[in-house]
Amino acid sequence: MENHGQMLEQYKQQTKCLVALDSIIFGFDGEKLQCLLVKRGIQTDQESWSLMGGWLRPDESLDQAANRIVVELTGLNHVFLEQLYSFGNPMRDPIERTVSITYYALINVHAYEEERNKNFIAKWFDLNELPPLLFDHHQFIQTAIQALRQKAAFYPVGFELLPEKFTLPQLQALYEAIYMTTFDKRNFSRKILSLDILEKLEEKQRGFSKKGAYLYRVKEEAKKESANDFHSIVSNVDGLFRQKLITS
Amino acid sequence: MENHGQMLEQYKQQTKCLVALDSIIFGFDGEKLQCLLVKRGIQTDQESWSLMGGWLRPDESLDQAANRIVVELTGLNHVFLEQLYSFGNPMRDPIERTVSITYYALINVHAYEEERNKNFIAKWFDLNELPPLLFDHHQFIQTAIQALRQKAAFYPVGFELLPEKFTLPQLQALYEAIYMTTFDKRNFSRKILSLDILEKLEEKQRGFSKKGAYLYRVKEEAKKESANDFHSIVSNVDGLFRQKLITS
Repeated sequence: MENHGQMLEQYKQQTKCLVALDSIIFGFDGEKLQCLLVKRGIQTDQESWSLMGGWLRPDESLDQAANRIVVELTGLNHVFLEQLYSFGNPMRDPIERTVSITYYALINVHAYEEERNKNFIAKWFDLNELPPLLFDHHQFIQTAIQALRQKAAFYPVGFELLPEKFTLPQLQALYEAIYMTTFDKRNFSRKILSLDILEKLEEKQRGFSKKGAYLYRVKEEAKKESANDFHSIVSNVDGLFRQKLITS
Repeated sequence: MENHGQMLEQYKQQTKCLVALDSIIFGFDGEKLQCLLVKRGIQTDQESWSLMGGWLRPDESLDQAANRIVVELTGLNHVFLEQLYSFGNPMRDPIERTVSITYYALINVHAYEEERNKNFIAKWFDLNELPPLLFDHHQFIQTAIQALRQKAAFYPVGFELLPEKFTLPQLQALYEAIYMTTFDKRNFSRKILSLDILEKLEEKQRGFSKKGAYLYRVKEEAKKESANDFHSIVSNVDGLFRQKLITS
């Protein structure tokens, strides 16, 4: 009993703080990686934009809170958010100590356009043309890009950003956008096909060149999130991880 | 101005909560993976053990808090902790809502024995012989094992758990401990050597067999954390990720 009282006393002595959820939503438009940003009520500074952020409520889990906030700010209901990292520098929010738990997602910009409620003020920005951002949100985006690259080197992430049937140049454009680099066309095709995860279709995409480009789709069995060696494709991936992309 | 007042009002309306840091410290004893546990003051239940946990203080970052707590509970100063995941189920701590941010580390059990202050009550447990644990700490350990396996499939993690010079059977024992499986001896040797990260020494380890086993060490250039394809060694790694190890 005395022990129990001591324990409650221990809890009481601790300092509580605010917990925020901030989500980085990447979109691919067929050419470049973009990032979805909003202007939030807490921003007196009208110049800066923010990630999809808000505070944790007493009755919700972290995942629930992150999803609720994304829906509230974008109208978008079916984004698969993955927890990224927690940031807790004591001074990161100048108003009040707030620990931020970040989430990230990759979505297809065009699919999003259809679902989006036009009343929301969320806007896509190219990653290399980001506006001034709230607090340490630049750092959150950098961390998310690194996580995305690391994951894309080993797992078939990103295929959901392409149409169901896509050409190899479209796939290459996605990988070039994620790694912000260019790959040799023949090497890229040879390596990606050697992974044996793509199925070549009879159809061709017409209109871009006389001959047309063959369409591919991801084999069903490869869609299960399984470790494939994309690392061989993005061979300098480790160097790229360390490359600072966005200087805040 | 009014805008600023509204903003402060928004902050005031939020519910704060406690933030805890809990660290999972894995150790390798040459044969098995172990996990370091303590008995904490907040545990009235004398049967259950806890990860290295404590509360975030107003003036410290998350990394600083995690490190301080590990030092306070173990006497161990030089553990490289890496942030793992944040857990925030509203009911996870029955006393008071607490978000737990977890960290994990891999250390050499024997190196630790030398540095450890014997006054502390931290104790090593085999992963398959864990005692009852506080709150959702079983889930934290499971998540850490999965992260460790995922990382070990692509990066040369774990070499710091071996002596500087080690035999291939010792390295195989480490990988078998991490994946809780057995690998074919010849395949393991062939694959690990094909990665070209090990240097074969002239010396042999004596005493275990008549012929002795050659000693190896990690090449300097491979020590930089770089992505190598350990995935080919632990080929069923993805299935293993999903395998539930510890049933809590």
